[in-house]
Amino acid sequence: MHTSELPLVTIVAEAVLRERLIEEIRRAGATGYTIVPAEGDGSRHIRAGDRADENVRIETITSPQVADLLLSRLAQDYFPHFAIIVFVTQVQVVRGDKYV
Amino acid sequence: MHTSELPLVTIVAEAVLRERLIEEIRRAGATGYTIVPAEGDGSRHIRAGDRADENVRIETITSPQVADLLLSRLAQDYFPHFAIIVFVTQVQVVRGDKYV
Amino acid sequence: MHTSELPLVTIVAEAVLRERLIEEIRRAGATGYTIVPAEGDGSRHIRAGDRADENVRIETITSPQVADLLLSRLAQDYFPHFAIIVFVTQVQVVRGDKYV
Repeated sequence: MHTSELPLVTIVAEAVLRERLIEEIRRAGATGYTIVPAEGDGSRHIRAGDRADENVRIETITSPQVADLLLSRLAQDYFPHFAIIVFVTQVQVVRGDKYV
Repeated sequence: MHTSELPLVTIVAEAVLRERLIEEIRRAGATGYTIVPAEGDGSRHIRAGDRADENVRIETITSPQVADLLLSRLAQDYFPHFAIIVFVTQVQVVRGDKYV
Repeated sequence: MHTSELPLVTIVAEAVLRERLIEEIRRAGATGYTIVPAEGDGSRHIRAGDRADENVRIETITSPQVADLLLSRLAQDYFPHFAIIVFVTQVQVVRGDKYV
């Protein structure tokens, strides 16, 4: 069965940034995203809270070009000011043409 | 320490499909799964909702053969009818013999 | 834009182990972690429950050395006694220097 190798961009940040990050994802050209509630603690100072939904973990499958653009914007506009984790995983996507 | 490289199949779909997808995972021969509540929006028309548990994100570590079978069935029986995202990540699993 | 390839260690276990696993992650030398509520069923006997937060799915981005140490300890001290899933994904991390 046909699959396409595409970047999966994962972003973990404070829940207060949720709408702004969705807007960045759309603006970079991604066609969708998945969000799960999260909590955590770390060197990036995303604090643990009493509630499991204090942070958000957002995933988006995109073209390589959209992923590069999104990462650049997040690195430039968010990393200096906010606690945010961003990483890319190469995944094999069913019907990958839907995401590019 | 010994690890095995195995496919991790991730499925994102509307929560209403949850039991059917678990059954598909078992029927394909997987030995287990992990589910987290999710929400999202995208080209596959998985809509954002007011509640964080409108969608489900299901993961299963399987043998390559089980992953292929599961992907084929999802592509054939679900993609034409439902909003569903399916992708495979190659991961290094501790005690991987438990999953094949 | 500069990214670093680093291991992302994912742990799925019963929620009762949450604080112990956070302590293991810190003790191995990781700088942070992300937790999402989860449920599941599998060969490792992580049971499905009525509540979505019966299990936890914990992620941590670390140096390769910290990942090896963490996996060794989990394999030795947890696998014989508890239902636990541990796998490693190689990911490209923005500002990866923050995690090592």
